[in-house]
Amino acid sequence: MSATVLCFGEILLRLSSPNKELLLQSARFDVHVGGAEANVAVSLSKLGHSAAVVSTLPDSTLGHACAGELRRHGVNTDAIRFCDGRMGLYFLTHGAGHRPAEVLYDRAGSAFAAAGADAYDWNALLAGCSWLHVSGITPAVSTAAGEAAMRAMSAARQRGAKISFDCNFRARVWGSRAKDAPAVLRKLCEQADLIFGDERDFAFMLAGTTDAAFKAFEQLQFIACTNRERHSVDVQQLSGRLQSRQATYTTRPYPLYGIVDRIGAGDAFAAGVLHGLIRSFDPQKAIDFATVAACLKHSIPGDFNLASAADVELLLSEQRTDVRR
Amino acid sequence: MSATVLCFGEILLRLSSPNKELLLQSARFDVHVGGAEANVAVSLSKLGHSAAVVSTLPDSTLGHACAGELRRHGVNTDAIRFCDGRMGLYFLTHGAGHRPAEVLYDRAGSAFAAAGADAYDWNALLAGCSWLHVSGITPAVSTAAGEAAMRAMSAARQRGAKISFDCNFRARVWGSRAKDAPAVLRKLCEQADLIFGDERDFAFMLAGTTDAAFKAFEQLQFIACTNRERHSVDVQQLSGRLQSRQATYTTRPYPLYGIVDRIGAGDAFAAGVLHGLIRSFDPQKAIDFATVAACLKHSIPGDFNLASAADVELLLSEQRTDVRR
Amino acid sequence: MSATVLCFGEILLRLSSPNKELLLQSARFDVHVGGAEANVAVSLSKLGHSAAVVSTLPDSTLGHACAGELRRHGVNTDAIRFCDGRMGLYFLTHGAGHRPAEVLYDRAGSAFAAAGADAYDWNALLAGCSWLHVSGITPAVSTAAGEAAMRAMSAARQRGAKISFDCNFRARVWGSRAKDAPAVLRKLCEQADLIFGDERDFAFMLAGTTDAAFKAFEQLQFIACTNRERHSVDVQQLSGRLQSRQATYTTRPYPLYGIVDRIGAGDAFAAGVLHGLIRSFDPQKAIDFATVAACLKHSIPGDFNLASAADVELLLSEQRTDVRR
Amino acid sequence: MSATVLCFGEILLRLSSPNKELLLQSARFDVHVGGAEANVAVSLSKLGHSAAVVSTLPDSTLGHACAGELRRHGVNTDAIRFCDGRMGLYFLTHGAGHRPAEVLYDRAGSAFAAAGADAYDWNALLAGCSWLHVSGITPAVSTAAGEAAMRAMSAARQRGAKISFDCNFRARVWGSRAKDAPAVLRKLCEQADLIFGDERDFAFMLAGTTDAAFKAFEQLQFIACTNRERHSVDVQQLSGRLQSRQATYTTRPYPLYGIVDRIGAGDAFAAGVLHGLIRSFDPQKAIDFATVAACLKHSIPGDFNLASAADVELLLSEQRTDVRR
Amino acid sequence: MSATVLCFGEILLRLSSPNKELLLQSARFDVHVGGAEANVAVSLSKLGHSAAVVSTLPDSTLGHACAGELRRHGVNTDAIRFCDGRMGLYFLTHGAGHRPAEVLYDRAGSAFAAAGADAYDWNALLAGCSWLHVSGITPAVSTAAGEAAMRAMSAARQRGAKISFDCNFRARVWGSRAKDAPAVLRKLCEQADLIFGDERDFAFMLAGTTDAAFKAFEQLQFIACTNRERHSVDVQQLSGRLQSRQATYTTRPYPLYGIVDRIGAGDAFAAGVLHGLIRSFDPQKAIDFATVAACLKHSIPGDFNLASAADVELLLSEQRTDVRR
Amino acid sequence: MSATVLCFGEILLRLSSPNKELLLQSARFDVHVGGAEANVAVSLSKLGHSAAVVSTLPDSTLGHACAGELRRHGVNTDAIRFCDGRMGLYFLTHGAGHRPAEVLYDRAGSAFAAAGADAYDWNALLAGCSWLHVSGITPAVSTAAGEAAMRAMSAARQRGAKISFDCNFRARVWGSRAKDAPAVLRKLCEQADLIFGDERDFAFMLAGTTDAAFKAFEQLQFIACTNRERHSVDVQQLSGRLQSRQATYTTRPYPLYGIVDRIGAGDAFAAGVLHGLIRSFDPQKAIDFATVAACLKHSIPGDFNLASAADVELLLSEQRTDVRR
Repeated sequence: MSATVLCFGEILLRLSSPNKELLLQSARFDVHVGGAEANVAVSLSKLGHSAAVVSTLPDSTLGHACAGELRRHGVNTDAIRFCDGRMGLYFLTHGAGHRPAEVLYDRAGSAFAAAGADAYDWNALLAGCSWLHVSGITPAVSTAAGEAAMRAMSAARQRGAKISFDCNFRARVWGSRAKDAPAVLRKLCEQADLIFGDERDFAFMLAGTTDAAFKAFEQLQFIACTNRERHSVDVQQLSGRLQSRQATYTTRPYPLYGIVDRIGAGDAFAAGVLHGLIRSFDPQKAIDFATVAACLKHSIPGDFNLASAADVELLLSEQRTDVRR
Repeated sequence: MSATVLCFGEILLRLSSPNKELLLQSARFDVHVGGAEANVAVSLSKLGHSAAVVSTLPDSTLGHACAGELRRHGVNTDAIRFCDGRMGLYFLTHGAGHRPAEVLYDRAGSAFAAAGADAYDWNALLAGCSWLHVSGITPAVSTAAGEAAMRAMSAARQRGAKISFDCNFRARVWGSRAKDAPAVLRKLCEQADLIFGDERDFAFMLAGTTDAAFKAFEQLQFIACTNRERHSVDVQQLSGRLQSRQATYTTRPYPLYGIVDRIGAGDAFAAGVLHGLIRSFDPQKAIDFATVAACLKHSIPGDFNLASAADVELLLSEQRTDVRR
Repeated sequence: MSATVLCFGEILLRLSSPNKELLLQSARFDVHVGGAEANVAVSLSKLGHSAAVVSTLPDSTLGHACAGELRRHGVNTDAIRFCDGRMGLYFLTHGAGHRPAEVLYDRAGSAFAAAGADAYDWNALLAGCSWLHVSGITPAVSTAAGEAAMRAMSAARQRGAKISFDCNFRARVWGSRAKDAPAVLRKLCEQADLIFGDERDFAFMLAGTTDAAFKAFEQLQFIACTNRERHSVDVQQLSGRLQSRQATYTTRPYPLYGIVDRIGAGDAFAAGVLHGLIRSFDPQKAIDFATVAACLKHSIPGDFNLASAADVELLLSEQRTDVRR
Repeated sequence: MSATVLCFGEILLRLSSPNKELLLQSARFDVHVGGAEANVAVSLSKLGHSAAVVSTLPDSTLGHACAGELRRHGVNTDAIRFCDGRMGLYFLTHGAGHRPAEVLYDRAGSAFAAAGADAYDWNALLAGCSWLHVSGITPAVSTAAGEAAMRAMSAARQRGAKISFDCNFRARVWGSRAKDAPAVLRKLCEQADLIFGDERDFAFMLAGTTDAAFKAFEQLQFIACTNRERHSVDVQQLSGRLQSRQATYTTRPYPLYGIVDRIGAGDAFAAGVLHGLIRSFDPQKAIDFATVAACLKHSIPGDFNLASAADVELLLSEQRTDVRR
Repeated sequence: MSATVLCFGEILLRLSSPNKELLLQSARFDVHVGGAEANVAVSLSKLGHSAAVVSTLPDSTLGHACAGELRRHGVNTDAIRFCDGRMGLYFLTHGAGHRPAEVLYDRAGSAFAAAGADAYDWNALLAGCSWLHVSGITPAVSTAAGEAAMRAMSAARQRGAKISFDCNFRARVWGSRAKDAPAVLRKLCEQADLIFGDERDFAFMLAGTTDAAFKAFEQLQFIACTNRERHSVDVQQLSGRLQSRQATYTTRPYPLYGIVDRIGAGDAFAAGVLHGLIRSFDPQKAIDFATVAACLKHSIPGDFNLASAADVELLLSEQRTDVRR
Repeated sequence: MSATVLCFGEILLRLSSPNKELLLQSARFDVHVGGAEANVAVSLSKLGHSAAVVSTLPDSTLGHACAGELRRHGVNTDAIRFCDGRMGLYFLTHGAGHRPAEVLYDRAGSAFAAAGADAYDWNALLAGCSWLHVSGITPAVSTAAGEAAMRAMSAARQRGAKISFDCNFRARVWGSRAKDAPAVLRKLCEQADLIFGDERDFAFMLAGTTDAAFKAFEQLQFIACTNRERHSVDVQQLSGRLQSRQATYTTRPYPLYGIVDRIGAGDAFAAGVLHGLIRSFDPQKAIDFATVAACLKHSIPGDFNLASAADVELLLSEQRTDVRR
């Protein structure tokens, strides 16, 4: 393995109703591959980085097809384990107008959730890696997955790799274990150089503000988040914020009309921030880039942000064009 | 039959061009079941009521498939008659931007239009029924259908069931009989406890205003209507109004961006008002609920409003969310 | 040939990604026929004129299918030559939100580009013709095509037919020959009674303004163009301008929300101006008509504006309706 | 009008279930244009002849789209009248295996059926025409349509054009008028130079055999028919027979595996026989050509046989190939 | 509940690759509802019987949509419980030629499997019921489901309802509990009046033959099974056998060319036998009817046999037709 | 590069009509990636080998998407060059029944054809490689491509890698250079250890038989080919033959009913033979495996054989099954 960024988390198959229909309104699903960390890996690959996903997939047609889809977008899949078990799924009803989108998770008992905490040889996997990216969904999936994430972080820290953590609190995934979530998430945050989280996340974990986070978490260099203003499901506005121990950088608000697919925008943002840090952008450029990357994601069907760095830069340059020819 | 609400009218098959194309631009139709009264029945069923459709359908694959589609959404179809004759159709070109949608009716000579005025045994059908819902399209379809509607109303009044009537004036369906429409509609309105109609309807029928209606129609308790402001085919604004003999209740205007399917919004509104009256909502709550239900319909493909009461209540609560997970 | 308007240019097959996906994101293309001059011909035919396309297509299934598609919309295809060679193609990625659409031309070496300058018998073709329409894409395609356009114009002028020329500068089609473009375009403009071009076009050709054009080009009676303001790929605003030697006529800005397909809007505008001139509209009516026709095009999938004159007039009458029934 | 062959009959819109589903099993129809005589015209056009359709269509989007589809395949549509009225429809459930296909006609009261017997100016229409083709469906549609067919034949005979008649008895289209069918069909047969009919047709009309037909009908030169052996809906065998007053010509049986679309095969056969007679093929060549054309039709979706003369000749040459490249 | 036949078992959602593609080869699934007992219920409903499904579904969009689909085909769904839990799924890759179809179950931990053995009030449910139908998949799903099936059978026997049992051994569903399968299946068979099973089933359960079954199972009156001969995935041959304590009845072999969807053919057969017994057909007629019903299923997409009794009788009458019009 | 098998040739994008329609009959193309050598690489990857494609693709969305599709199936794409130029295309009309499929190449002037003979660093590319696979299409594409193939072979021979060559004569790709084809192909054959070719190929190249090939080509160890018997486009029969200098091994004929996609079957066969040689199968096993692999390809949409070694072995074991569950 010699990927610059290692993303550890569950890969999901998403089944969604076509043409803004309700779920099962007509007898068809559109199918995409997703999962918070896989989304980050694909986005980084499209932005020009070497990215790998570490995960466990069922040793079935479905599992291998998901890995193939990651490979298609340039992600290294050599570290994906194939085991007995089921595929993590989620059903998505696209929203429209006043009707919110709806996610129905069906990931309990997946091959990833069932994998033991010691399923991954982190020292081998992290060789040559500069960044490890993990999200708060992983400890929500199962205790073993959370423990594996913790081990990954420890190994990364020992080897000098930086650690990126996206809080991504999902009450429905935690289920009955939700009461343990603040403590578990705090332990993971303690290892992180970069945390994706907003005021609600820190209130939940620390009963405090973003500033409290810099006190609570010693390794922490950056906190990043987006702020979303919702006029309707299709019409929103997005801005970004990147906070270091010294300063806070914000972007202008970007209007989003005619949103095509909002799922994965947060992961596109995370990949954008990582891109900025890896490329040593100054913080303002980094948060601008990440926010624009997240905006672009809203125009792309599926969970993955398939925009290239050039696509993002073009939009950043504020040149208004509607057809490139 | 023990449905709370009985809806009497023609069931139509709708054939529409896909992907905002013009009619027959590509060699495909999307197919939905509709019809003003069937739309109300489906919406009431989704809102948790026991609803039945009384109608006549052709004894063909098409006719039985339409009944099946109503059953799928929980509507009682036991009172649908299957006879020789053709299926009522309409062709829909979806609009977009500055291009209005276009409805091409092809319902002349349908099994429903051809059914005799005495085809339905109203006393049996209305047993256990609290509301009868009819629309002004029915007398437009054929004289016999209008006569059947009149008989249904008389039987309902005798049995103590309340009567809901949606004026729904459609000049093209009345065709050469349009000159008789005001008198026919007035006779039906005379029986109604609840009328769906706006100023144009009452001007047409009574050469008067809404207020004149309360004078002209003795049984009348409520008049309800929506007011639609059109910026473009996709971007509009909707508000609702419910008027009793004592007071008038209006809603705030709701913006509609990115309309998915506008057909059936009036029927969703009618079902919402009936829901409010059946559930004994106070009038303001009833008109708010109905208007929001109509707004939600704009986000759902097809003629039916498939939103549940919980979906409407969530939107009424003004909680802005774009993804439920 | 007895068409009122003769359009000379390359017919293209357009392959586009469905459902606002990226190119090849899923394994399907939607297929449309296009090409600037063919678009004008179809639009004129739909507006009620007799229009013909003069072109060269490959003598293959693809070539004949393209001609059939023009015929379907009433365009006379008798003057299309079928030769050895390949079909000119372009791949279109629809844009959305902040993501611009993208056109990838694959038309080099097409049967049209390869046709000799003397492939067309202009005297025979122009018999009975009142207008010849050509665009600046044709000389960009190949030197021979440009020479053929020049000969067509000379023959038209001799026969007393009027000449319409759309500058339509496309750097990527000119490729390495772009340095010759200003001189070539100027020679074609010299023959034109009507030029479609904006300030950038005249700056490019003449290093001057629109006013300079009236000085430089003796035959020129009218210059027409649209002005597009871009809020996003989906939300824009369009206005039109028609300038004669005496006066300038402009339209109000028309908002465009929820654009369905922007390709071909310029050609729809050109056809609208030609319609106005052929029908002897006063200039204000002509530019209003043309601009509204261009607006309507944004709501129609594919390259062709399939709106009728009645559709345009309805919109011009400012009657707001969202469903015609 | 200067078409070599004039085809008079109703143009239908066919709505069929996709993917071998039952009608309305999923919410989609595939849409094709058809009608026995239109099918013959398209096939003749594809075989290289100048063919026109004389018909009446509704003056609606549907009617004009159908004419456009004929034009696309090269058929002259100048003689199609557009009137008030509805579009003739039929619903097709494709068969498979042991499940027969099913046709549900919905053509009563169509614009074509309603057209008066004197709606067509046959002398003008038949100018320059060598063959008139009519089918027995036309008198089944309405008395007026049958009368128009009779007038067309008389005019053709007077002008020296030959007459082709396809019995095409459809009991469901005749409906209650079926008892008149034998006499009506006989009158039309009396004018025909060429009759498409099999033993059942002549038994029905004449209570006699094919031989009796030559005695009964003075003008008659040729009788042609196919013989179909059915193993299943997908696997059949077809042979052709052409009988003159002197001799009978038959083809070898052609196996049909994996039938794609069987509708229109009889019309493809009719066009093939007409092609042979127009091209002065010897009778054996003519019947071989026509039968192979009918076989090819089974491989083409829709009602039209889109095969060219070269496609038929290639298959006639018995060269087995499965991929041409 | 007053259904004639009660079917108890799990309802599944089937996700299949379209157009004979491999699973996930393109980004789309076709979606159908299935499950052995639900298939029997739908088929019986289509054959004209009153049928109900007893089951447990997740209280989610997916669960309610599945119930709606059963209702659409006339099945009574009043006895379906909606609980927390997940939807049982299976992924189907359609086969073709030499490539077998492939079923990937994902039903572990479903709401049905998790339902307690006492979740159903069998005395209430069986009121007015003549037949109970259960399959051997139910005890394979979970011990509790098997226990519920056992209780249903006891209650049915007490109430005088007859019992139909389809062995349907699926090793992958039994999983690690497969060693208990013979004993569990034997206990269920002991209650049955009618068993669907072949020599392999009885060898597995009894280490004996069909004849041994009549000795082992006292209540048993009939054993029924099909015999399938496979030439390829698309081309097969099917015959049926019905054995009573007195005699054995067999059908002729029916060829199956061009199979459209083979899933559910066994359930269509079971429904056909039940139809024969309920209608008091003589045994030869019953097995002929059931076998032909199973043949028809092969021509219908999805798990359900949507053929009517008239469709089956038409095919039984051996009238060869390929298009009904 | 450390792939076991290196495949050198052009990667094509295939655009095909859906649902057995004619090309452009409806406005849609299905899109697949193909090319003889890429097909072999994908098949080898699916059979468990490390395979790489060496090629030149346009540096466009299309080019990168094609590489992504190879990666998805596990093929190493590190050695693909991205340059200016166009994408090689081909249009495929699927055949059916008596209608042969039709391939329309549009690959002239592609980035691959334009690449110089020295574009590839064969010594670096062949490091660690055991087999080089090239086809006769490559020299047909351009002289430079043919020269590059020759250099690849020389380098392979020097490094001790074995050489596989598929004659694959395509007259239309050679075009005007077809007269040079025999000499060019002979030169490439001289280097080969394994040649895929049949009697027609050797007659064309050597004016001799297969036996002559062993005399003419010193390095040659094996000649392999399939023999195809055509009953119709859908129903065929395939057998395989592998000939060494000592003996000839043939397979039984395999019937092919209901062919789904025949394109790429030859490449699936080639991959099967290479699999056998790499795995050191005895020759009879190798030719059986390869022939069955080719049969399986006929059931898989697209150019690639996506069957695994286990899929092939299952079929080889002659276990007849139609549903695996």
